[in-house]
Amino acid sequence: MAKFMLKNHEKIAGLKCVKCGAVFNRQEVKYTCSKCGYIGILDVIYHYPFIGAIKPKQFLAQSKEMSLWRYLFVLPVENKPASLDMQIGWTPLYRAKRMGESIGLKNLYIKDDTRNPTGSLKDRASAIAIALALDQGQNMITAASTGNAASSLAGLAAAAGISTVIFIPKSAPIAKVAQLQVFGANIIMVDGTYDQAFDLCLQVSEKYGWYCRNTAYNPYLSEGKKTVALEIAEQMKFGRIDRVFVPVGDGCIIGGVKKGFYDLKQLGFIPQMPKIYGVQAAGSNVIAEAFFKDTEKIVPRVETPTVADSISVGYPRDAIKALRAVRDSHGSFVVVKDRDILFAQREMASNCGIFAEPAGAVTLAGLKKMAASGDIDAEEKIVILATGSGLKDIDAVRKNLQPPPIIKPNLEAVEILLSSQDKNSFC
Amino acid sequence: MAKFMLKNHEKIAGLKCVKCGAVFNRQEVKYTCSKCGYIGILDVIYHYPFIGAIKPKQFLAQSKEMSLWRYLFVLPVENKPASLDMQIGWTPLYRAKRMGESIGLKNLYIKDDTRNPTGSLKDRASAIAIALALDQGQNMITAASTGNAASSLAGLAAAAGISTVIFIPKSAPIAKVAQLQVFGANIIMVDGTYDQAFDLCLQVSEKYGWYCRNTAYNPYLSEGKKTVALEIAEQMKFGRIDRVFVPVGDGCIIGGVKKGFYDLKQLGFIPQMPKIYGVQAAGSNVIAEAFFKDTEKIVPRVETPTVADSISVGYPRDAIKALRAVRDSHGSFVVVKDRDILFAQREMASNCGIFAEPAGAVTLAGLKKMAASGDIDAEEKIVILATGSGLKDIDAVRKNLQPPPIIKPNLEAVEILLSSQDKNSFC
Repeated sequence: MAKFMLKNHEKIAGLKCVKCGAVFNRQEVKYTCSKCGYIGILDVIYHYPFIGAIKPKQFLAQSKEMSLWRYLFVLPVENKPASLDMQIGWTPLYRAKRMGESIGLKNLYIKDDTRNPTGSLKDRASAIAIALALDQGQNMITAASTGNAASSLAGLAAAAGISTVIFIPKSAPIAKVAQLQVFGANIIMVDGTYDQAFDLCLQVSEKYGWYCRNTAYNPYLSEGKKTVALEIAEQMKFGRIDRVFVPVGDGCIIGGVKKGFYDLKQLGFIPQMPKIYGVQAAGSNVIAEAFFKDTEKIVPRVETPTVADSISVGYPRDAIKALRAVRDSHGSFVVVKDRDILFAQREMASNCGIFAEPAGAVTLAGLKKMAASGDIDAEEKIVILATGSGLKDIDAVRKNLQPPPIIKPNLEAVEILLSSQDKNSFC
Repeated sequence: MAKFMLKNHEKIAGLKCVKCGAVFNRQEVKYTCSKCGYIGILDVIYHYPFIGAIKPKQFLAQSKEMSLWRYLFVLPVENKPASLDMQIGWTPLYRAKRMGESIGLKNLYIKDDTRNPTGSLKDRASAIAIALALDQGQNMITAASTGNAASSLAGLAAAAGISTVIFIPKSAPIAKVAQLQVFGANIIMVDGTYDQAFDLCLQVSEKYGWYCRNTAYNPYLSEGKKTVALEIAEQMKFGRIDRVFVPVGDGCIIGGVKKGFYDLKQLGFIPQMPKIYGVQAAGSNVIAEAFFKDTEKIVPRVETPTVADSISVGYPRDAIKALRAVRDSHGSFVVVKDRDILFAQREMASNCGIFAEPAGAVTLAGLKKMAASGDIDAEEKIVILATGSGLKDIDAVRKNLQPPPIIKPNLEAVEILLSSQDKNSFC
């Protein structure tokens, strides 16, 4: 196995700016393009022929590492971090037979990333950030986030024994703040917007030299997020996948998903890229808007009202990667209403036993909308992502529920209730 | 592999009443002892020599089934249920090095059962209940529960495509009810106590022939819960384990834990049983009380106030199995205060990245109390269970938190804040 442990300089060819196309050596830049500044998001470029030469497919077949670290050969990390003893990734991919049939699809699969340690796909990115911070001997990581990215960083950092400072806008929901506090994160509430918290976090990171886990800004987060695609492909035995549906907020996850399939295509693991579909909420759809206008220019928005708070983003930092993921794979965007998101959330839970947060269930709403338009063949192999746990936001699901019936504690009362109910609901 | 698939009649010798000792044939009784009635909880007895003869240890070494179904050889189920496509069990066991050191222990491990599909150990029992219901061709399961057992049943039944009717007392917290509703459970709120809901559920189960998943009453639930012990032992390479700490409410989990280690001892997998410690909350400690009075007679209580709601039980249904688990293994009970439970919850999260609900973190509080008394040797191998996710009850953790500081969105404000903080919290 030893020869399999490629060094970063062997695997990584450089970092390429998505804006100006400049390519940098891994040592030259830490986060973004030195020419374009903050908007010059970088993409990690690999030496595929070199990686392919060590026969990674054979390695995978023998690997007993049931986590995202089984894919070290295409990650910017050399070894599984010894001090991060936590089971991250290798989440289940379920065949959703009954739900597929109800939509007229024979081969529907759900990738259940609610099963990650802190309950969201973001753990994949945090794992890479922590591995890199540890590699660089840094014991402080900072981020600006109100949601899954922050709780993920806080939880994994706690496991690794390193500290975090997390910037959040004052308006952040109390339940989400509690999730950070319990992991021992140092939280700074900013009397301003999320964007102000984001910018302040960058300044602080620069001034104090703390490692920065801000989405998109740190180019290696996509590399963590892409492991969800690597796993889907492997769980589908590297066979054909026709379409993959991904929730889109800032665009980082879908960029990562594309990258994962791209890696596998370049390495000859898969015959073709699946078409990638970005799903946005109607109230927060600036990337979809740009897509349908056939531009990479985003028109930011201040208000982005949607029940799917994890993808409520007015100024998406990773829009370019998101747009290219969809265009390059010949996919599209689907925009769904809150009502359909909440319905999909309940359907995913009651049909498959997966309780995703609203943002995690938009993919089902998006798939159903597309399927209803008749564009999908019944035989196609389709994967939808469930990205975050519904337990993180119980209030969202409650909006959509009726109170259950109340009866006296005797058998007669049950009989009366049952005879009055729709028989189908007590089948 | 085929010869490994033992039939139930080959594996199971019978069911033994914990009260009167009568042994029944598997076909003779469905739930409880026909002589003692509801209080005659049954224990499943295995043909160990027969099971041992098929060399289960060799089988495990080759098994690729990374779920509780890898232990079919000591389960009352013949095959992994085809229609329950869900990853249950085989949760991570982490070495809690830093936390162990802080308590003066060199070999502390945490079994993280918050990672089960619906976020609690109860999924192990629900999996068995659903497998048995499916075996018997039943498509309706009923249970009385306010908490993890119910949401577990509802979630797994949704995945398996079978229906549930769940009885809950009117006083059940709204957030917990929402978790059931989203999985599509049919919920009946009972205008009465939990015990009344429990009894009503039994009557309804009998009248309508619905499969019953009531804790303790159904003897096979322990068999599911015991898989946590089977996994711990295997993850510890079937080597020595000195003590295991288990939260105790109704007593079913600890009974299962004992059963798992007992199975392995009988089959020659492990050299000796670990000492098993039951941890109860000070406000809900009727089993511990009986233990220290050296009796099996429980004095039930109406009020059992504790922040650890999942182990707040005044009339524990599985007390006898719990008491015997502790006595037979030469363990003990530890009773901990709410303040220490909440502290342990934060410590487990901030030190290990495991966010357990209060009832899931009592084991750490119990271990610390015992360690403080000087009774534990630093070299001992100790495992504590984290049984349920803290995301299920965010309100509990919030009681214990201070609001974070709020600053203006500029670097100067950060500098002032940092200089005023305890340096240790921004290390």
